[in-house]
Amino acid sequence: MMPRMSSRLPVAIVGASGYTGSELLRLLAGHPHVEVVSVSAKRAAGSRLASVFPHLRGVYDLPIEAFDAEQVAGRARAAFLALPHGEAAQVAAALHERGLAVLDLSADFRLRELATWSQWYGGPEHSHPAPQLLPHAVYGLVERHRAELGAARAAAQARGAAPIVAVPGCYPTATVLAIAPLLEAGLVSAEGLIVDAKSGVSGAGRSPGLGTHYPEIAEGLRAYKVGGSHRHTPEIEQELGLAARRAVTLLFTPHLVPMARGILSCVYATPTGAGDPERFRAALVEAYRDEPFVTVLPPGELPDTSHVRGSNRVHLTACYDARSHRVLAMAAIDNLVKGAAGQAIQCLNVLYGWQETAGLAAAPVFP
Amino acid sequence: MMPRMSSRLPVAIVGASGYTGSELLRLLAGHPHVEVVSVSAKRAAGSRLASVFPHLRGVYDLPIEAFDAEQVAGRARAAFLALPHGEAAQVAAALHERGLAVLDLSADFRLRELATWSQWYGGPEHSHPAPQLLPHAVYGLVERHRAELGAARAAAQARGAAPIVAVPGCYPTATVLAIAPLLEAGLVSAEGLIVDAKSGVSGAGRSPGLGTHYPEIAEGLRAYKVGGSHRHTPEIEQELGLAARRAVTLLFTPHLVPMARGILSCVYATPTGAGDPERFRAALVEAYRDEPFVTVLPPGELPDTSHVRGSNRVHLTACYDARSHRVLAMAAIDNLVKGAAGQAIQCLNVLYGWQETAGLAAAPVFP
Amino acid sequence: MMPRMSSRLPVAIVGASGYTGSELLRLLAGHPHVEVVSVSAKRAAGSRLASVFPHLRGVYDLPIEAFDAEQVAGRARAAFLALPHGEAAQVAAALHERGLAVLDLSADFRLRELATWSQWYGGPEHSHPAPQLLPHAVYGLVERHRAELGAARAAAQARGAAPIVAVPGCYPTATVLAIAPLLEAGLVSAEGLIVDAKSGVSGAGRSPGLGTHYPEIAEGLRAYKVGGSHRHTPEIEQELGLAARRAVTLLFTPHLVPMARGILSCVYATPTGAGDPERFRAALVEAYRDEPFVTVLPPGELPDTSHVRGSNRVHLTACYDARSHRVLAMAAIDNLVKGAAGQAIQCLNVLYGWQETAGLAAAPVFP
Amino acid sequence: MMPRMSSRLPVAIVGASGYTGSELLRLLAGHPHVEVVSVSAKRAAGSRLASVFPHLRGVYDLPIEAFDAEQVAGRARAAFLALPHGEAAQVAAALHERGLAVLDLSADFRLRELATWSQWYGGPEHSHPAPQLLPHAVYGLVERHRAELGAARAAAQARGAAPIVAVPGCYPTATVLAIAPLLEAGLVSAEGLIVDAKSGVSGAGRSPGLGTHYPEIAEGLRAYKVGGSHRHTPEIEQELGLAARRAVTLLFTPHLVPMARGILSCVYATPTGAGDPERFRAALVEAYRDEPFVTVLPPGELPDTSHVRGSNRVHLTACYDARSHRVLAMAAIDNLVKGAAGQAIQCLNVLYGWQETAGLAAAPVFP
Repeated sequence: MMPRMSSRLPVAIVGASGYTGSELLRLLAGHPHVEVVSVSAKRAAGSRLASVFPHLRGVYDLPIEAFDAEQVAGRARAAFLALPHGEAAQVAAALHERGLAVLDLSADFRLRELATWSQWYGGPEHSHPAPQLLPHAVYGLVERHRAELGAARAAAQARGAAPIVAVPGCYPTATVLAIAPLLEAGLVSAEGLIVDAKSGVSGAGRSPGLGTHYPEIAEGLRAYKVGGSHRHTPEIEQELGLAARRAVTLLFTPHLVPMARGILSCVYATPTGAGDPERFRAALVEAYRDEPFVTVLPPGELPDTSHVRGSNRVHLTACYDARSHRVLAMAAIDNLVKGAAGQAIQCLNVLYGWQETAGLAAAPVFP
Repeated sequence: MMPRMSSRLPVAIVGASGYTGSELLRLLAGHPHVEVVSVSAKRAAGSRLASVFPHLRGVYDLPIEAFDAEQVAGRARAAFLALPHGEAAQVAAALHERGLAVLDLSADFRLRELATWSQWYGGPEHSHPAPQLLPHAVYGLVERHRAELGAARAAAQARGAAPIVAVPGCYPTATVLAIAPLLEAGLVSAEGLIVDAKSGVSGAGRSPGLGTHYPEIAEGLRAYKVGGSHRHTPEIEQELGLAARRAVTLLFTPHLVPMARGILSCVYATPTGAGDPERFRAALVEAYRDEPFVTVLPPGELPDTSHVRGSNRVHLTACYDARSHRVLAMAAIDNLVKGAAGQAIQCLNVLYGWQETAGLAAAPVFP
Repeated sequence: MMPRMSSRLPVAIVGASGYTGSELLRLLAGHPHVEVVSVSAKRAAGSRLASVFPHLRGVYDLPIEAFDAEQVAGRARAAFLALPHGEAAQVAAALHERGLAVLDLSADFRLRELATWSQWYGGPEHSHPAPQLLPHAVYGLVERHRAELGAARAAAQARGAAPIVAVPGCYPTATVLAIAPLLEAGLVSAEGLIVDAKSGVSGAGRSPGLGTHYPEIAEGLRAYKVGGSHRHTPEIEQELGLAARRAVTLLFTPHLVPMARGILSCVYATPTGAGDPERFRAALVEAYRDEPFVTVLPPGELPDTSHVRGSNRVHLTACYDARSHRVLAMAAIDNLVKGAAGQAIQCLNVLYGWQETAGLAAAPVFP
Repeated sequence: MMPRMSSRLPVAIVGASGYTGSELLRLLAGHPHVEVVSVSAKRAAGSRLASVFPHLRGVYDLPIEAFDAEQVAGRARAAFLALPHGEAAQVAAALHERGLAVLDLSADFRLRELATWSQWYGGPEHSHPAPQLLPHAVYGLVERHRAELGAARAAAQARGAAPIVAVPGCYPTATVLAIAPLLEAGLVSAEGLIVDAKSGVSGAGRSPGLGTHYPEIAEGLRAYKVGGSHRHTPEIEQELGLAARRAVTLLFTPHLVPMARGILSCVYATPTGAGDPERFRAALVEAYRDEPFVTVLPPGELPDTSHVRGSNRVHLTACYDARSHRVLAMAAIDNLVKGAAGQAIQCLNVLYGWQETAGLAAAPVFP
């Protein structure tokens, strides 16, 4: 299934009319080993890409088609799915059985337990469309699951098993990267974690609504989906549970910030004991020593979403507050890149054995 | 000292060239019982107000003068100080001994313990310029210290004792209003409080710097002064200590949000026991039942800084997260109004026995 | 029809769920002679105001009703219509015949010629619903039609003729105030006028759409409806034609700026002759000498929409460019206040013989 | 002087601590034929790049040095100057005589007539530091001066004459690209041109000041340097004069828009005669048919600065207004890319015979 390095991998983007889709297109336009050969969307089908995304005029001249699994499979070897949950799993199943590598940016394959998916995403009329595929999916937070992605690659090469990658959610990416190493190292308690995270408005998608209408959002700040109701909660808990090697229950509060891109996640934790106040940051340095996209900031610098904008980079740090004996671990990412499209491409790169930064090397756009 | 209702109280604004000063001027322009008779500032002395604040052109035609205690005392009966700490206490002393009511918007009289002031604001070369006045100052968070302000009024009427009001900081105002009633009612523990607060950029004042340069701030988010280093920390702890009737040590993290005005403070606390999940919000409703400026939002609504912009209003709520057994209490204010100038005027109104909303009745400016 | 000064005038707001409606409510909350007694809207009917406009929680506790002319006439003596064109004229007719003063914020009564209305707003299926009322309507740009508003007042008092005021559009208000005095004084030619105007996003209303979706608007700028297609064109031309005493045809280009409020209109004109380069600004000073809301800026200062935000004020100036022998006249207003709700209230004040600044005296909210 | 394609060209950036410098660094990080070997700045000398530009942390690990011509010449073959005018010409002379290709982003070599430079940039104490180099400089608006850049390349190869490129200003780039083809084709008159241009705040540089302080800028709009006083005026006139083959005097009004990046320039012109209303846009299509960075938008679409953000692309169009018989030509660029750093790199690419899009192929970052 793996293409030779000399040719470009033909890929499809399913659900191309939203911000995740357009960001995949933006980044893949500069990818040395990939060629976008199929772009599909529901409502926008029949238009050309540039009329839906004027910023891609002159970059792509592709038609947007209605999705057809057979047609996509005839052209592409891998597919990115930027679809609503539920719909994504259906499309994933159709493409998986036709042998395509699937990079799903929805929540359909992120939760290992079907019951958890059903509780948070299902309902009386919504059962998971492809539960049989859940065991095959790899959670695509590369910095924490690189080995599994490598195993999926090996399986694909050895047995032709088409891989399914569950590309992580934006909040989970920032949150898990910030705190997981501290949990793993036993430096902080798995009890009583509090996540206060803040997102730009593109995280709400491209469908307009009163809650994303410019005058309602600009120059103001608000929390939303408080009290443990945001669907990224179980995803964060699952990944932190793996790091802590025990079940984790936490409080997660998302906010909507007047900016288009960016997530800053602040995680408050209790140290497990006394010791060097620098040990928390040091654990992050240790954990991410060889990571191409992760920068642990030097003491005195703090993450700023502006400093990673447009890039797949992660800025993070951890600070110890001696007065309250608490740790604050923080990470800033671009929600559309490391929180979605960039991370999906990073997964693809690992899956195909390319340099992990292929197509993702561009520096952040500041200011 | 108290003027008769039929005449307007002549007031001075000292330190009029910053945002707090201009906001005092904006609000006092509509105050039925007050007349601004003196405006002073350091660097802007010699200019006219409208050239420093073009938005006040046509509203005021006053000169900005260099501060002179004798001159101010000759004209005004009360003075608002919008000065840096240290400098404020010096001016306060000079005006207090000349019999003026002083409303100090700096931190100089907020902390009851001189040692705490010295620790957070002092230094080898900075001792408090007027420690003898500390016992006379009233902390002007009206919703929690109305009786003391009333006592100061009575003392002024009975003995001519000029009152000194320490107008609270912006972060403390939002934070204390959100969580103090829950502490006071014993519903949450005084241990392990975490305050994750977010402010607009006007909170940093009007002096330009790289950290408030438009391109550095717009479309990005960052925390600052983390790890217990922000000077509002002891002020919050002092007030919450009063509510909890025991010492409180907490973690306070401020953020800078790309908006000019507004503070949203999120306080995470642990319930002291089990019980009705609605009891936290109910305690806020009970505490603020008769408050003219405080609105406890109905269930399902969350505070948004946009909804209080330009006004002295406070929107707050408390949410219980059953999964993590934690409470999130939140308040939104306009940092320049309820967090500074409006609150100072509210204090003045109480001090002079006027309707508490005098000059402060304007509805929020949305959008 | 005119109420005695001792009682408050009961008014209705029809179409209260948009930004113009909420701005009327905000401003009227502080009006000394008016009481809002009826609030109606279509889709929001059945809700309470505070659930549609959380910033009005604690300010109003009114239900939003479905519009019923009989019911409104039973309660109110005057009505503000914040409705789409076409619909507004129908409601205006129903209220006018029931004796209410009507302040219509739509375009239905702004154009004196029915044919012009039909050309720009009509269509095969849209004829003007109340053409018989056109001759009775007064164009409510107070600074230029105060006498006609006075005459309408006199007619109301003498003959009980209920007045209809066509409250001007936002772009016409800024544009006409900037350039009309220069045309009237014969200082600039009526030929070849170019209007390059820029508006905040609230001008597009509160109904969400892709074109006002936060991520599409923030941090970007674009023109729209170029080439003489914006419907405010004939309104500007009509008023400037009155000033120039001849027909005016001009080019009008509107822009959408990433800000919620504000309009800056730049009008480029050719001087009719040589002379003092200061004569253009001087003509504005002369024209607006006694105007309570208009400020002609001193030389060296330029209008900034931030400096009038939230207020009914107008900042304007005119600059002569000797190199190109052209004049640039500029005005900044808040589109929701002087460009809509504030101006409507200013009209009401004139109509009822109140102080023109009643309810409108608040200083701009800066920053 | 031209390097072989197999090795990377060592380049220096002089004046690296501003936005133009950092943008050069961002873009050159992805350039296949260039290696940044020297970075210098005045005040930031002694720091590392990442501490001045945290977004470049992990991208570059270079020290910022004090400028030393000898040292730079010892390492680099070409230099980008992001310096204030006056200072730039001095540095340019020092590097030119040491044989380096110079890409100067200041105004020092943009104006062909020394007298014009002296009038707009000089003064009693500021004469041009290197007037002898003016005749050698090429104006680097590639789309209009590609042949001259090619000639400079040939001269360099043949005679080793180090080229000097005057990289155009941001406003001139957008303005000239929008209207020059219409002037050149004789479709519009060279008389009476009006340029109403709008810029993001990064155009004002990275040095903080009250005029770029976040709260003063956000949510507001203002013109500045009106009346023919902006220094880009003669540069625009020079280039349009070349297109029109006669002297051009125009009115130029710049605005400051609450956004970090982007310029939208609107040019109003009078058609020279009657004819097909589509001929103006058609002339742009014809002029830019083979340009890699310029897109003439299809009818019905208008330029939006958001759609070119972060890229070297230009979106433009021309619209005829039949009512007023005027043409509006418009262009949107990113002021830091096509208006500065990107254009400089585009010049370098032409100068060295590389693909013109080398290092500049990245798609715009939207939203």
